[in-house]
Amino acid sequence: MSNFLESLYSQATFNLKPSPIREMLHLIRRPGMISFAGGMPDPEIFPVEQFKEAAGILDREGKDVLQYGTTEGYLPLKEFLAEWTAPKMGRKLATDEILITTGSTQIVDLLSWVLIDKGDWVICEEPTFLGATLTMRNHGASFLTVPCDENGMKVDMIPEMVEKARKEGKKVKFIYTIVNFHNPLGCDLSLERRKKLIEIAEKYNLLILEDDPYGYVRFDGEEIPSIFSMDTSGRVVFACSFSKILAPGTRVAWCAGNKEVIRKMTVFKQGVDVCTSVVAQAMVYEYCRLGHLDSFLPKIIDHYRKKRDAMEEAFRKYLPQGEVKWLTPRGGFFYWLETPKVKAKDLFEKAVEKKVAFVLGEPFFPNGGGEHNFRMCFTFASKEQTEEGISRLGEALRELL
Amino acid sequence: MSNFLESLYSQATFNLKPSPIREMLHLIRRPGMISFAGGMPDPEIFPVEQFKEAAGILDREGKDVLQYGTTEGYLPLKEFLAEWTAPKMGRKLATDEILITTGSTQIVDLLSWVLIDKGDWVICEEPTFLGATLTMRNHGASFLTVPCDENGMKVDMIPEMVEKARKEGKKVKFIYTIVNFHNPLGCDLSLERRKKLIEIAEKYNLLILEDDPYGYVRFDGEEIPSIFSMDTSGRVVFACSFSKILAPGTRVAWCAGNKEVIRKMTVFKQGVDVCTSVVAQAMVYEYCRLGHLDSFLPKIIDHYRKKRDAMEEAFRKYLPQGEVKWLTPRGGFFYWLETPKVKAKDLFEKAVEKKVAFVLGEPFFPNGGGEHNFRMCFTFASKEQTEEGISRLGEALRELL
Repeated sequence: MSNFLESLYSQATFNLKPSPIREMLHLIRRPGMISFAGGMPDPEIFPVEQFKEAAGILDREGKDVLQYGTTEGYLPLKEFLAEWTAPKMGRKLATDEILITTGSTQIVDLLSWVLIDKGDWVICEEPTFLGATLTMRNHGASFLTVPCDENGMKVDMIPEMVEKARKEGKKVKFIYTIVNFHNPLGCDLSLERRKKLIEIAEKYNLLILEDDPYGYVRFDGEEIPSIFSMDTSGRVVFACSFSKILAPGTRVAWCAGNKEVIRKMTVFKQGVDVCTSVVAQAMVYEYCRLGHLDSFLPKIIDHYRKKRDAMEEAFRKYLPQGEVKWLTPRGGFFYWLETPKVKAKDLFEKAVEKKVAFVLGEPFFPNGGGEHNFRMCFTFASKEQTEEGISRLGEALRELL
Repeated sequence: MSNFLESLYSQATFNLKPSPIREMLHLIRRPGMISFAGGMPDPEIFPVEQFKEAAGILDREGKDVLQYGTTEGYLPLKEFLAEWTAPKMGRKLATDEILITTGSTQIVDLLSWVLIDKGDWVICEEPTFLGATLTMRNHGASFLTVPCDENGMKVDMIPEMVEKARKEGKKVKFIYTIVNFHNPLGCDLSLERRKKLIEIAEKYNLLILEDDPYGYVRFDGEEIPSIFSMDTSGRVVFACSFSKILAPGTRVAWCAGNKEVIRKMTVFKQGVDVCTSVVAQAMVYEYCRLGHLDSFLPKIIDHYRKKRDAMEEAFRKYLPQGEVKWLTPRGGFFYWLETPKVKAKDLFEKAVEKKVAFVLGEPFFPNGGGEHNFRMCFTFASKEQTEEGISRLGEALRELL
C-alpha cells in the first residue's frame, strides 16, 4: 500500500475483500484448466443471432436509445416485465413497482443504501451467495446466519435469533434469501417455509430481499409461489435478472417491491449510475418483444437439464462412493458438495494441480464454516469437459483419502 | 412515509435528496415546453446508423460479448482508450491504470467508496456539478467550496482552507474539479492554476478527481494540458465518458489513475455492479475501431459550436441589456447566467408559465448560494426552440424588472 494513500482511505477500503470468484479468473484462464468455478452460462446457448436482430431497435428508436434514460428504467421493458412476470408475482405489477438495474448485484447495493447503517444486521442463509454478502458488508452489515436443510433455511430459528439480537441492541433490518435453486446449496425454500417467513417478517418488522436469479430455469418439480406473491403489506423486494435467462453480458436486471422502497432505491440509483445502459435495456426489450425470450427459455432449460444430468452421472462414475455428499438441484446452476473426510482446501490444491477448478465453500459462510464444502457450476463446461474434469476431481480426492 | 419502513431506513435514506435535474423530467415533458435544463446531447447528431453497424461485433465476438465481463472493463476498449487518450494523458496509459465504468457518476461513487468515511471533507468548486456532490453526500461527505472566476477555482485559497479545516479536526480527502467548460460555470481551469493545484495536492496529501466529460468538445482556444499529465506521484484520478462524444445511452465511461487506487475502485465495483454492460462496451469499442469516433467528433464540435453561437445571439437579441451576465464558454454544454436584480426562483416560475425551463443555480452550491444564477444547456434544443425559448425568457425577465 502506498504510504500517502494509507491516510486517505476509508474504513470500507481497509475492510475491503475482493470476491474470491472474480479473483479466480487468472487461475481459470490457465491453459488446459477445466473450471466449474464461476456461475457462468454456457456461451454455446447464447442466442447471438437473435440478440443481434434486436439491435434493429436502433432503426426505430435510435435517438431515444442513445439518449439518457430515466433512472427508473426503459419504460417499454418495464411494461413487458409487468406482464411477463405476472404469473410469478401473483398479479400484474404497476410500472412504478419495478426498477431496472445494472445487474442484480446493483439491487443488493441499492437496497443496502436504503436500509443499512454501519453495524446493522441482515439475516441470511448459511451458506449464502458470497457476492451479496460482500456488497452488504461494504455497507457495514453483519450477518445472522440461519442453517439450511434440503427445504432451505430453517425459518423456525429466526424468531429466537431476532429476539436475542434485539435484546443485545442489534438493529436487524432484513432477511436475504435465495428462494429457488439456492446459490450455492441448490435447494428450494419450501412453500410452507415461505409462508412462515412472511409471517416472521410481519411480526418482527423486517423486509425480505427475495433473490431469484434462477427461478425461471427449473428442470423438475412444480413451481413454488414467490414470497412476493404472498406479501400483503409491501415487505418483499423481489430480484431477478436477464443474466441467466438471456445473457449476463447485457447487465440488465430488475426488482419489484413496495413503491416507496422502489422510489428510495431509484433516488440512490441517481447517485450510483444515473440509469442502466439504455442501449442494453432497449436491445433486451426488443429481444423480448420479438418473442425470443419465450422461445429460447425452454431450450435453455433443456440444455441445462442435460448438463446437470451429465454432471450427476460423472459424479456417480468418478467420485469415490460414500466419500462425497450432494443434493440434486431441480434447476439453476450449481451442485454443492461435501467431503466429510477431506478439507475442501486440500482438495482444491490437488485439483488445481490436475487442472480442474471449483469454488471453496468457506467464502459462502459469512460467519465461518464450510471447510468441507465446495460449489460446482454445471452450466458452463462442455459435456466432455465435465466428464474429464470430474474424473480428475475423483483422482484428486482419492489421493487424499 | 409508511410507518413500518421508518424504523428500517438507513441514515442515508433520511438524508437522501433527489437530483433536482432528474426530478424536473415531468415538468420538461409538458406539451410545448422548451427545455434548457438537462445537460443532454442533441439526438439529431447521434450517429445512429454507425452505432447500429457496431452491433456487428456480435457476429465476431458474440459469445464473449454476451458472457460476464471482467470488472476492470472490456480489454479491447481499454487498449483503444490507452492509445486514443495518450495526447491528453501525456503518455500511453497501461490498461491496469484504466477502469471502465457504468457512466461517470459511477466513478464518483467508486472513488467515494475508496476515500470517504461519513464526516470526511471534499474540496470543490463553488458552484459545482450537483450530480457529483449528491453522490458524495450519500457517502457522508461535506464540502469545502472554493469560489471561482473566469479562470476556474481560485486555488490560492485552498491551503488556508485545508489548514483551518485540519486544525478543526476535519479529514480532508480530495479535490473535485471539473477542468474544462465547467458544469455549470462554462469556464476552464487555467494552466497556471492546474499546476498550482497539483502542488497543493502534494503539499497537503490530497487526491484530485479531475472530471473532464466535456474536454473533447472544445470550440475555441487551445487545449490546456490535463492535471493528470502533470502528476508525477499518482494523485490524480482522471474521469471521462462517452456520453458527450458518442451518446449517453451507452452508459460507458472510464477513469485513469494510480494503479492501486484503480484496483481498490475495481474491487468496490465488484460489489456495485460486477461489470459494466459488455454489450454496451463492445459496441462502443467497435464504433471506435471502425473509426467513427474520430470522424464524428469534429461534426459534434461543429454542431455544438453553432448551437452555442445561436444561444449567444438569442441572448443578445432577447434578454434586456445589462440585466443578465454570462461568460461565453469555449466548449461543453452550458451557459451560466446571473440576474443581479431578479431571483432565479422568481424567474423560473414566470418562465415555466411561458413554457420555458432551465436549472436553478442553488443546487449547484453545496453550502448555499446562487440565488441569482441559473444554468442553460445549449446543446439539446433546436435552433428554432432556442430562439423561441430565449425570447420567452426575455419576456419573463422583463415582467420581473
